Amino acid sequence: MTRANEVRDGEVLLPHGIGATDDAGLVFVGRIRTPWARGDCPRNLRAARERIAAEGHPRPRIELDPRFALALTALQPGQPVMLLYWLDGARRDLVVQAPAHADGPRGTFALRSPVRPNPIGAATVIVTALDLAAATLEIDAIDCFDDTPLLDIKPWLETVDMPPARA
Amino acid sequence: MTRANEVRDGEVLLPHGIGATDDAGLVFVGRIRTPWARGDCPRNLRAARERIAAEGHPRPRIELDPRFALALTALQPGQPVMLLYWLDGARRDLVVQAPAHADGPRGTFALRSPVRPNPIGAATVIVTALDLAAATLEIDAIDCFDDTPLLDIKPWLETVDMPPARA
Repeated sequence: MTRANEVRDGEVLLPHGIGATDDAGLVFVGRIRTPWARGDCPRNLRAARERIAAEGHPRPRIELDPRFALALTALQPGQPVMLLYWLDGARRDLVVQAPAHADGPRGTFALRSPVRPNPIGAATVIVTALDLAAATLEIDAIDCFDDTPLLDIKPWLETVDMPPARA
Repeated sequence: MTRANEVRDGEVLLPHGIGATDDAGLVFVGRIRTPWARGDCPRNLRAARERIAAEGHPRPRIELDPRFALALTALQPGQPVMLLYWLDGARRDLVVQAPAHADGPRGTFALRSPVRPNPIGAATVIVTALDLAAATLEIDAIDCFDDTPLLDIKPWLETVDMPPARA
């Protein structure tokens, strides 16, 4: 994600960059406040949960744009939610990637790397506290950088968010 | 979603519309081809699975922009993936909504309604077939309209996409 324009062996770029990024427009509805900065960020959500427990960090917090405070109505502490957020600064032009941890090059759609045509992150977390008047939400953990723009909060539903028992 | 500018009892709109939708820009990476049209669309993913099985519809198909074909490299049939797609035409200005099926008004972030500030749909489905040369993917089911723009495909991961055992 910080690799600027470097290309590793086996990686494939889009021939002419990402192309139009105005097929649709996003609004940032808030920011995710976390203990993590570039260079000191857990590798994934599980690692974030472990570090928050082991190192005594405060729980991550979502600071909503106050215009969206009422959109929290009926959300409950203890409830699992899916967060969608914008991986600001991630490059968008790699179609095949060779991440350091993988055994070889893989397609972007077979990876959870932040590098993707639309750098939207998704994570399922637990709402641990919620303050409608302050337009804030506390969550159990997340692995993104401090100040990451938030796009959406969705109640997690087993019938939509888990693979079916049989396909 | 088809309710134009109607407002039901208990619903709350943003005071000045959605505001800037150019905080970030999206690129459509393909289209989702489904049997569903406006007015004849299953209510949710489970209902879509049931109708596809009961009514003998062909499985939904993803037609990728050919520039992104190689991004499928290393995806496997049988694998669960999360799809992110753009709910074209959904209104974006409701903060509190009163859906017909709910017992009362609820915040947008407590609902899976397509009406949201960033109308991004998320569904976990199974890849049933995949043709890299044709840049197409077949999936077990989905409940969106035919021709819905695709934003992303992510491998589904239990550690990221399921609520933790303990928060």
